[in-house]
Amino acid sequence: MIEGHGDDGYRYGMVRMNFSSNIYAHADLSALKAYLAAHLDCIASYPEPSARTLEALIADDCGLDASQVLVTAGATEAIYLIAQTFRSDPTYRVLRPSFSEYEDACRQEGYSETEQAALCWLCNPENPTGRVYDKDFVKNLSRQHRLVVLDQSYEYYTDRPLLSPLEAVETGNLIQLHSMTKRYGVPGLRLGYVVSSAALVALLRARMRPWTVNALALKAGEWLLREKPQILPDRHAYLAEARRLRERLDKIAGIEMEPTSTNFMLGTVHPATAAELKDFLALQKGMLIRDASNFEGLTPHHFRVAAQTPEEDDALVEAVKEFVTP
Amino acid sequence: MIEGHGDDGYRYGMVRMNFSSNIYAHADLSALKAYLAAHLDCIASYPEPSARTLEALIADDCGLDASQVLVTAGATEAIYLIAQTFRSDPTYRVLRPSFSEYEDACRQEGYSETEQAALCWLCNPENPTGRVYDKDFVKNLSRQHRLVVLDQSYEYYTDRPLLSPLEAVETGNLIQLHSMTKRYGVPGLRLGYVVSSAALVALLRARMRPWTVNALALKAGEWLLREKPQILPDRHAYLAEARRLRERLDKIAGIEMEPTSTNFMLGTVHPATAAELKDFLALQKGMLIRDASNFEGLTPHHFRVAAQTPEEDDALVEAVKEFVTP
Repeated sequence: MIEGHGDDGYRYGMVRMNFSSNIYAHADLSALKAYLAAHLDCIASYPEPSARTLEALIADDCGLDASQVLVTAGATEAIYLIAQTFRSDPTYRVLRPSFSEYEDACRQEGYSETEQAALCWLCNPENPTGRVYDKDFVKNLSRQHRLVVLDQSYEYYTDRPLLSPLEAVETGNLIQLHSMTKRYGVPGLRLGYVVSSAALVALLRARMRPWTVNALALKAGEWLLREKPQILPDRHAYLAEARRLRERLDKIAGIEMEPTSTNFMLGTVHPATAAELKDFLALQKGMLIRDASNFEGLTPHHFRVAAQTPEEDDALVEAVKEFVTP
Repeated sequence: MIEGHGDDGYRYGMVRMNFSSNIYAHADLSALKAYLAAHLDCIASYPEPSARTLEALIADDCGLDASQVLVTAGATEAIYLIAQTFRSDPTYRVLRPSFSEYEDACRQEGYSETEQAALCWLCNPENPTGRVYDKDFVKNLSRQHRLVVLDQSYEYYTDRPLLSPLEAVETGNLIQLHSMTKRYGVPGLRLGYVVSSAALVALLRARMRPWTVNALALKAGEWLLREKPQILPDRHAYLAEARRLRERLDKIAGIEMEPTSTNFMLGTVHPATAAELKDFLALQKGMLIRDASNFEGLTPHHFRVAAQTPEEDDALVEAVKEFVTP
């Protein structure tokens, strides 16, 4: 595991505004919290060793069979589980820049990286760029590799078309990762799931450690699947706000923002470094951003932010202006 | 992962009394639950990628340095992490009968079992027997093997002397597992920790997946370490009750109970099988026991129970009598 992921507010103490992870920080979780508060008794019993109840609900929701769904402690557990399960053919490729855990998981299992790899990892929408690859690109990729892992953790933060769970299963050699963390703004719970063919899910399930998902996370997941609350803001309006933030930041001298199809975006700062910008914003303004310099292929000048409310985004723009002004 | 661990009440629906896992089912968790209810906001942020705050509290509590402590998602995560970390010398030995996950974890990593193994697993107090090995036995074991894993998950359920965390660290080649699940009666949270030399902890930490411990589990752990609430019943009285239950069960024709130094105990039923006894108790009486036949070396007749309240224990005795009476 590398140090330096986003949402590391615990390093700075008081954080007033959080732009550092890729999720909307103001999700209305009051109903979910009330539900959990009423179900805290579940801490006194073992959770199901594997999360069959939640898997059945997800399968139902996606029009799949429960044998095609595997619940994990966040997408992160799925990433390590996949690297472990398929290590008998230990070559991999990551479409970069991307989430560092794919590479960490493969290296831990002794994989080496090649262009013609057995296992190909794609994050779509891509992190940290916010780019979205189209469906044909993904399907082509699945023809070029023995196995493709398609991490759709950010799927609820774009309006571009993505592979559906059913399409993912039909591809036959594709494992699709989904994040309940990102969808519902609950990164503290550690909850995600894998969708793939029953044959591939069975291989993963055989490798799964028991009880990795905490009982409260399962309770929350079951409630979210049953209730389907609208926890994120209206997607259309939120993406419009992200475009507005991107344009305002891009106009600042010394800042260049890359295009994005999601709520988060990559930028560079010059001549200062992203680490300096991050420290200034955290220590002077109580604002947390992501220093993106530790993504492979990026530079010490790269940072990433996710749009929040218009007021917060405006405050970020003003604070960045203050930083770059001599 | 095998099927058929204890506490599988989710298979039977209504369970009125739970003797199936090794923990006291009536721990008073009201203060912990109130604390968690007031801190549900933590689900909206990522937990620390590794649990440094809780590790510092545990180290403080044990008189160790934080570099000698590693928090995991239950002892189960530690078991798999150990098997993975030390697989370059893939021979193991388990002192049996014992918890099946040691073997599952080693097999998954390609270990083979030999008497003169590099890696030796001991659960002390032992599960499912309730036997306690003395300190000299454990120290001798550490001289015979390159590395010893000493799982003290049930340490708070015996009054026999066990290796302290400090003694475990001083041994040099010993990894000691501790379960907050068992200590505080919170198996739903998935929380445990490893104590070992800083060098061995560093090897494990390098292999650790990020964010495996859910934010509410960390919050609970921090509160439990700070408050040290008396959640289990008085140990002396509880062990006396366990001895009383054992004696009453042992007097039933067709039932033989083995000696135990803890709150749980292994027994056999004849001529019926443990599976039949379990089904009768669950379906007719709403009582859950552990069919122990899937512990390697045991028979279809072995079952395990943990003492609960005197009233519940009496009810179990009567129900077992009813089962064996033609």
